[in-house]
Amino acid sequence: MLRTLLLLLLLPVCLFAQTPQQKVREYRRANEHQILNEFTTLLAIPNVASDVVNIRRNAGRILQMMKDRGLNPRLLETREQNSPPAVYGEWKTPGAHRTILVYAHYDGQPTDSLQWTSRAPWKPQLYTAALEANGQNTPFFDAGLINPEWRIYARSASDDKAGVMAILTAFSALKEKGVVLTSNVKFFFEGEEEAGSPHLGEIIDANKELLEADAWIICDGPVHQSGRKQVVFGARGDINVDLTIYAAKRPLHSGHYGNWSPNPANLLAHLLASMKDDAGRVTIDGWYSDVEPLGAAEQRAIADAPQYDEELKKQLGIKRTENAGKTLMEVINQPSLNINGFASGDVGALARNVIPTTATAVLDLRLVKGNDYQRQVQRLIEHIRKQGYFITEHDPTDAERAQYPLLARVKVRPGGYNADRTRMDLPISQSVINAVQSTSTDKIVLLPTSGGSLPLSIITERLKTVTISVPIANYDNNQHAENENIRIQNLWDGIETWAAIMTMK
Amino acid sequence: MLRTLLLLLLLPVCLFAQTPQQKVREYRRANEHQILNEFTTLLAIPNVASDVVNIRRNAGRILQMMKDRGLNPRLLETREQNSPPAVYGEWKTPGAHRTILVYAHYDGQPTDSLQWTSRAPWKPQLYTAALEANGQNTPFFDAGLINPEWRIYARSASDDKAGVMAILTAFSALKEKGVVLTSNVKFFFEGEEEAGSPHLGEIIDANKELLEADAWIICDGPVHQSGRKQVVFGARGDINVDLTIYAAKRPLHSGHYGNWSPNPANLLAHLLASMKDDAGRVTIDGWYSDVEPLGAAEQRAIADAPQYDEELKKQLGIKRTENAGKTLMEVINQPSLNINGFASGDVGALARNVIPTTATAVLDLRLVKGNDYQRQVQRLIEHIRKQGYFITEHDPTDAERAQYPLLARVKVRPGGYNADRTRMDLPISQSVINAVQSTSTDKIVLLPTSGGSLPLSIITERLKTVTISVPIANYDNNQHAENENIRIQNLWDGIETWAAIMTMK
Repeated sequence: MLRTLLLLLLLPVCLFAQTPQQKVREYRRANEHQILNEFTTLLAIPNVASDVVNIRRNAGRILQMMKDRGLNPRLLETREQNSPPAVYGEWKTPGAHRTILVYAHYDGQPTDSLQWTSRAPWKPQLYTAALEANGQNTPFFDAGLINPEWRIYARSASDDKAGVMAILTAFSALKEKGVVLTSNVKFFFEGEEEAGSPHLGEIIDANKELLEADAWIICDGPVHQSGRKQVVFGARGDINVDLTIYAAKRPLHSGHYGNWSPNPANLLAHLLASMKDDAGRVTIDGWYSDVEPLGAAEQRAIADAPQYDEELKKQLGIKRTENAGKTLMEVINQPSLNINGFASGDVGALARNVIPTTATAVLDLRLVKGNDYQRQVQRLIEHIRKQGYFITEHDPTDAERAQYPLLARVKVRPGGYNADRTRMDLPISQSVINAVQSTSTDKIVLLPTSGGSLPLSIITERLKTVTISVPIANYDNNQHAENENIRIQNLWDGIETWAAIMTMK
Repeated sequence: MLRTLLLLLLLPVCLFAQTPQQKVREYRRANEHQILNEFTTLLAIPNVASDVVNIRRNAGRILQMMKDRGLNPRLLETREQNSPPAVYGEWKTPGAHRTILVYAHYDGQPTDSLQWTSRAPWKPQLYTAALEANGQNTPFFDAGLINPEWRIYARSASDDKAGVMAILTAFSALKEKGVVLTSNVKFFFEGEEEAGSPHLGEIIDANKELLEADAWIICDGPVHQSGRKQVVFGARGDINVDLTIYAAKRPLHSGHYGNWSPNPANLLAHLLASMKDDAGRVTIDGWYSDVEPLGAAEQRAIADAPQYDEELKKQLGIKRTENAGKTLMEVINQPSLNINGFASGDVGALARNVIPTTATAVLDLRLVKGNDYQRQVQRLIEHIRKQGYFITEHDPTDAERAQYPLLARVKVRPGGYNADRTRMDLPISQSVINAVQSTSTDKIVLLPTSGGSLPLSIITERLKTVTISVPIANYDNNQHAENENIRIQNLWDGIETWAAIMTMK
């Protein structure tokens, strides 16, 4: 009787008591149009790191968004006047025994507007589905239901203003609903990640105490191809190299001189072909020799990950992969060599019967734990030299042209860094795993490393902290390319994920 | 005494009697500014064959130039309304037993204005020397001496409006000075040679009687690299092919997918490398097997040609040539395979960390006597197939993507044709050789074939005539490329050369 009475008394409470996730969802549902409005306002500001004026307008907008939330924000400037500032803010939680720093970046990759369907990467567009699935352009609207399968197209819609937006909206939701955070939370939004984070080290060095934390938790990159949420414990290192091959000093008629005067595109084709075998394995000496083996937890995580390669091949329209027989998950745990771009002469309507004077390729070297980016570049240079090339860092002089039969310019782009990986069995790693898992009925995916890169080593080497990434974007977001987009449900899910991190046990 | 008297009587005649060449030179010297003015007016009209409006303005201008000379000109139209007309005119010489047709073309190669130093290919510019020799831009002027080493920069300054101008000015000079021509002369200026002469056959078929001649004598291409005048008895055939390799349907992040999803630039590099060995010899099966051997006169002409390769290598800044050990003259008597352009993704500031979706190369196949262009293209296609590619003529369908690991699109550009060669020992060949030699104190160069191409077979197969080319442009004219130019002395020499042809024995 007494038990029955107690149950009856408790019933209304049980029926109406909400989990923090439910409260966050309620907040989001009540504010969807306002959230998208704040998001598209931010997306409308061009955000290439080298665009001095506009990148600062982004920082100013984020500063205001953080002021609105009471996060006491400030800009962290670099010594170099024209480089983008980081935007910093913080929320102190009385009695918290842990400090986390949450990170996203507000700059995006450069792009050619003409390659976008909209012709306007910084004019956000709403589509009823992915363009590849015949999504139709539809105007933004102010009230009523928003289909969460719709997508917003704009540069950085997913990479990585979605990160900025998910983090700040998660905080708004928790604050509004009176949910107490479990950590002191520092907010850090970088403005030149896509340019290789050339000043991140300087900013950390100048603000060490401010930026110390038990972990930097990073919102960047896509969830698993299967749609499952994932937690990523490392990222590959990265370095880009511009490689140019020289032929005759002036463009020549391909009839009068063809197959006598050297063709730079042909030379570069031979040189690139020498770097990888037909199966896609890199044939440069020592390319794989520094790789640090994976631990037991990491190997298990890979084995547990969903088998998704065949589905992915179908979606991408490819029947054959490089490094056949290895899964994508295995391949990203190896260093890579990729051609980002190749150009010589013209193709299409502008093509002429000429022998071009130069041929250029942009190479992307990804690195895993154990690799050193400078050593890896040196291996590439040695390989080119072994193919008979004299290597310069400038256009060849007449004397060099007279002396060397094969001439290559190698320019290492600034901003390279090494890979980094956090152990999965640390307490903070387990807390993050449990927090993200608590928001999903699907088993989340745990990745020892992301295929993509983040300047994690710049952080961990300076601050003696660890980094863990919790991405939110849809995997088919056209990241770094034209027609970048975010599926709206991924933004909604991301808000809940990041609220869980801010309230994790 | 009588002898002395006779000598005295003859002296004034000997001193003042002029050769036709001297008369032509006198005419030119008296009219240099007017000649250049007429020339630059023609150069200022954009002349890409596909530029429907402007190409017809060129035809109109040339029609007027011919009217001014009393050549009774008319346009020869094609059935297709928008394609460029040929401009035809004629001069009947009473009692002449021979009819020659003189040919040049008024269209030029397409070009990217931004690659020109002037940024304006159709705004003729005067320079005090070649740009490569630090020539300085200087205004055109109306009176006074013109330095013949100066150059005029503009699209088609040499290829081939210089031909139109030399022919018409030679005629003006002869007419003005009262020098009687030795042949009936027909004038024919084509408007789509650089587009592969797709309607030349049609125009000939529709005007057979009008275009019949004992020989078509063609003004196109450069003189020998040594600066010596040359007569060319053939030209290589030509056909262009667009080759595109396909990877994943959408651009992918090169970190998340690199070295797993195929890279189209890497595939194309391997494919192109398979087509030529390191020495530059084409490795496609049967590439050289149809070549018709040279006759004795042709072999002697090659042996007699100036040895100029080493000087040329110095000027071009190259130490190594393709097909090392063979001279340029030997190499152009072989079929070639050349890469005109290659593109995948972006390079430079627009480069991003992506795997591009496609890679494209434009290939240029040159053909010699014995080759058939369709057979040669078939060999290329067979080679690509042997490397494992499925070949389409369109973007691959999803079904094709699911079925074939390697996908290539091969598009054969319209306008291909075979090589042609006229025997050097014909009477008309000897007449042209003697005429050109009479204008030069240097031994002229005789070439069995040009490295460049002309649609000669379209002419000879229809009209049972022969073709002989008498080029006038400086060899370093940047033909087909940006910064095309003509050295003024080459135009002056060209006028004398062509006057000699119109008055040859």
